[in-house]
Amino acid sequence: MFVKVTQYAGFASIFPLGFIMMSLWPFSAKPQDFSQPNSSWSPEMLRLYEHYNALCEAENEKGEEKRETWRKLPSYNRTIKYATGGVHLSKLVQAKARLFTRCIEEEGAAFEYVAFLNKVEKTCVCVFQAGHLLEGAPGHLHGGAIATMIDTVTGTLAGYLSGPVMTAYLNTNYRSPVPLGSVLLIHSVLDRIEGKKIFVNCKVTSSDESKLHTEATALFVSINMGPLFGTQS
Amino acid sequence: MFVKVTQYAGFASIFPLGFIMMSLWPFSAKPQDFSQPNSSWSPEMLRLYEHYNALCEAENEKGEEKRETWRKLPSYNRTIKYATGGVHLSKLVQAKARLFTRCIEEEGAAFEYVAFLNKVEKTCVCVFQAGHLLEGAPGHLHGGAIATMIDTVTGTLAGYLSGPVMTAYLNTNYRSPVPLGSVLLIHSVLDRIEGKKIFVNCKVTSSDESKLHTEATALFVSINMGPLFGTQS
Repeated sequence: MFVKVTQYAGFASIFPLGFIMMSLWPFSAKPQDFSQPNSSWSPEMLRLYEHYNALCEAENEKGEEKRETWRKLPSYNRTIKYATGGVHLSKLVQAKARLFTRCIEEEGAAFEYVAFLNKVEKTCVCVFQAGHLLEGAPGHLHGGAIATMIDTVTGTLAGYLSGPVMTAYLNTNYRSPVPLGSVLLIHSVLDRIEGKKIFVNCKVTSSDESKLHTEATALFVSINMGPLFGTQS
Repeated sequence: MFVKVTQYAGFASIFPLGFIMMSLWPFSAKPQDFSQPNSSWSPEMLRLYEHYNALCEAENEKGEEKRETWRKLPSYNRTIKYATGGVHLSKLVQAKARLFTRCIEEEGAAFEYVAFLNKVEKTCVCVFQAGHLLEGAPGHLHGGAIATMIDTVTGTLAGYLSGPVMTAYLNTNYRSPVPLGSVLLIHSVLDRIEGKKIFVNCKVTSSDESKLHTEATALFVSINMGPLFGTQS
């Protein structure tokens, strides 16, 4: 096996907001963090980003032992360069592969998001701005795009708490449609861990948390990374 | 209200593989059908397309009354030009909005799919080729991309059977990961209709149907299109 992975989240689903070994990054020594603010972010998106960022900094000031209470997670557009075993793609396609939620380069057009992890409270909060390429019904966000973000955020939390996981199920209840362009909060919280099973709950709300758009429950299962790369290690 | 809609599928989710009034198409008199074969389609994708296409033609030969048994559904990259009421986007963004599953222009990079409807058997079968921009775990399809296709295909079936619907829930069970580049069959079948509720089951298998990748159940609810456009009509 050519690569080592420290942690990752979401097998059939998520590749996460961080947690790769930098030296293995296949494109450059320092990959771009796509969860940094850009000119497409609305004032509401920026306000929420700054709110959670301030929580990270506040915790930092309290001292080393609290440093990890809130943490902003980086987000790349690829995961890791994987081993030759188990690779199903040509080398060309392999080089072109991109994480689904970061595959559209135009800023603001698709998924704009930033996630914050609280390991103490076992929660992950994502601020998400829904771009115009994510349309389902006219002027509204596609249900599949919502499911994609829920899978990403819940899987990221599960992965950070338990190491490599895959999604076993994702049950999504759509309560009210989301206008395109909206800024949403995706609140993900650990329900429980039973052996290799990690149960996570999720709510998607309006940015002021007054309106519930979507609720979901997800089950992730801890896995051995080996089979993914065609090895047993 | 500026537009009239005959039928559509999937409110917070799907905008479907057809069923719009052509005269209302905002971009050209004859929109492009993105479910026609292109050079990115693998031999397996083409084979399955031709298999189901032949079923449509065979039925046609039997006479008028059986014409609709199997039908290939067209697939556009936008739905309809919507009314001014209830529009949440600027005119510029509104013009740029695209259906999520057809928002990436590069052939073969993302969602390549074609769906066939059987109104008699109340099924919809979709042949889907998973492109390299839909990655979750390295070399594998993102769980959110699978959910997106399931929402699209089940919602299309519900919409064709019952008129305008929205997704109420989508419960997805991931059985085995899907290598990027795979050709899959998405089998969607009506479970039952109870008043305004349309229950649909779905299985995602390998192209030869030997391997089950994902199972799902979905509930759609018939809706009045008015509120979507900010009217009561």
